[in-house]
Amino acid sequence: MAAWGERLAGVRGVLLDISGVLYDGGEGGGAAIAGSVEAVARLKRSRLRVRFCTNESQKSRGDLVRLLRRLGFDISEGEVTAPAPATCLILKERGLRPHLLVHDGVRSEFGQIDTSNPNCVVIADAGEGFYYQNMNKAFQVLMELEKPVLFSLGKGRYYKETSGLMLDVGPYMKALEYACGIKAEVVGKPSPEFFKSALREMGVDASQAVMIGDDIVGDVGGAQRCGIRALQVRTGKFRPSDEHHPEVKADGYVDNLAEAVDLLLQHADQ
Amino acid sequence: MAAWGERLAGVRGVLLDISGVLYDGGEGGGAAIAGSVEAVARLKRSRLRVRFCTNESQKSRGDLVRLLRRLGFDISEGEVTAPAPATCLILKERGLRPHLLVHDGVRSEFGQIDTSNPNCVVIADAGEGFYYQNMNKAFQVLMELEKPVLFSLGKGRYYKETSGLMLDVGPYMKALEYACGIKAEVVGKPSPEFFKSALREMGVDASQAVMIGDDIVGDVGGAQRCGIRALQVRTGKFRPSDEHHPEVKADGYVDNLAEAVDLLLQHADQ
Repeated sequence: MAAWGERLAGVRGVLLDISGVLYDGGEGGGAAIAGSVEAVARLKRSRLRVRFCTNESQKSRGDLVRLLRRLGFDISEGEVTAPAPATCLILKERGLRPHLLVHDGVRSEFGQIDTSNPNCVVIADAGEGFYYQNMNKAFQVLMELEKPVLFSLGKGRYYKETSGLMLDVGPYMKALEYACGIKAEVVGKPSPEFFKSALREMGVDASQAVMIGDDIVGDVGGAQRCGIRALQVRTGKFRPSDEHHPEVKADGYVDNLAEAVDLLLQHADQ
Repeated sequence: MAAWGERLAGVRGVLLDISGVLYDGGEGGGAAIAGSVEAVARLKRSRLRVRFCTNESQKSRGDLVRLLRRLGFDISEGEVTAPAPATCLILKERGLRPHLLVHDGVRSEFGQIDTSNPNCVVIADAGEGFYYQNMNKAFQVLMELEKPVLFSLGKGRYYKETSGLMLDVGPYMKALEYACGIKAEVVGKPSPEFFKSALREMGVDASQAVMIGDDIVGDVGGAQRCGIRALQVRTGKFRPSDEHHPEVKADGYVDNLAEAVDLLLQHADQ
């Protein structure tokens, strides 16, 4: 067992990334990562609070939760912090009407949002929706605005599906930033506002929380910048070079969620 | 007539951008910009040397020249400096075998290049070839290389077709750079090597040349960094804000190529 496990003392709440930690997406919905179904169940039987903190932006929360339940996970929609609902709140607050460059699977989350005569662009992980004409339309909408506003649901570089590494929304966000000479507003990890809302919803302070994710920058670095401890799992998009990342060092590295939960149940507040 | 025209004294050679200066691409091949056919003819009747310096990477030089001749321009393949042939030279010199993410129209330029078992990626203005699976394939090839090498044929943000602004290769280069955490090698404007090769082919020193283009960064800024004077035309992708660009100031701004040639024939070496 890793010696750094003692660093988990005082943890009262656990933020769990979903893709690459609970399951790998892919054909037929993907596959649970070995040991993760049981690990989530054990966490939930403990006194630790648990919340799922995801940048998933291809699926609505409802569809994501249905998929995960089918894979055997104990999870409900109200336990998930996701960027699409967070974006809707911001759009309403600021009276913005988006042009949506998003996957059909997440469009329902924007059902209550006025998208006529758009004055901003929202980009999410559109997958095959990132074809040239669709990107060009988003670009043209931005270029016609006096002050172009671009929201990006996360800025992940890539994620892992059962078939291999897949480009995430981040590269396409960078493409539009460069094309228009602008800077996107990121909603999702690693944005501090996003972590803070997940902490609020869990009812635990940053100093009492730990994030578990497969993304050294988005999950680990983002959480640490908010004062949240963070573990990286060696599943999902993890690459061995992550353990020598020039800027981010996790509080610990574990083979998978099951090992993280072993350590938590041994060292965290019970 | 613009007072700054005197800055053109001593010019002996003219580098002409093609798209947005000679013609706007688009349906049916596009359309010549008013006055440009005659302006090129007048330049060629003068004692000034002329060379076409383009980042066009959707079409082979042969196809581009055939299109321009159909629009009425006096131009031959040997007068064109273009990034695809320049890239082939580099690939051969360095023994690199590219995975090509390029438009079918330019693929013939790479006919003599070994593309088996690729150890680099070449990205050009692929237009609708920039669909998700194609981008993801280029990304996966790069991620499998120990030292990923990415060549980008130009890094333009966008260009103008008769139907509107269109994303160029630059945004997709940025997408792959971000996804892989690498920096692309740009072949084409504004790379100094590219301008220098055009000057060599024209047989004129930088201090005796002027670049005429519609891209304030790629054409004007790039040329000036090589000691070449540069004019921006108010055609093609020109936007009024270009005249107040924070970093680049053209030696002069003209309504179109015809006005540029009027000034050149009045002030340059004859």
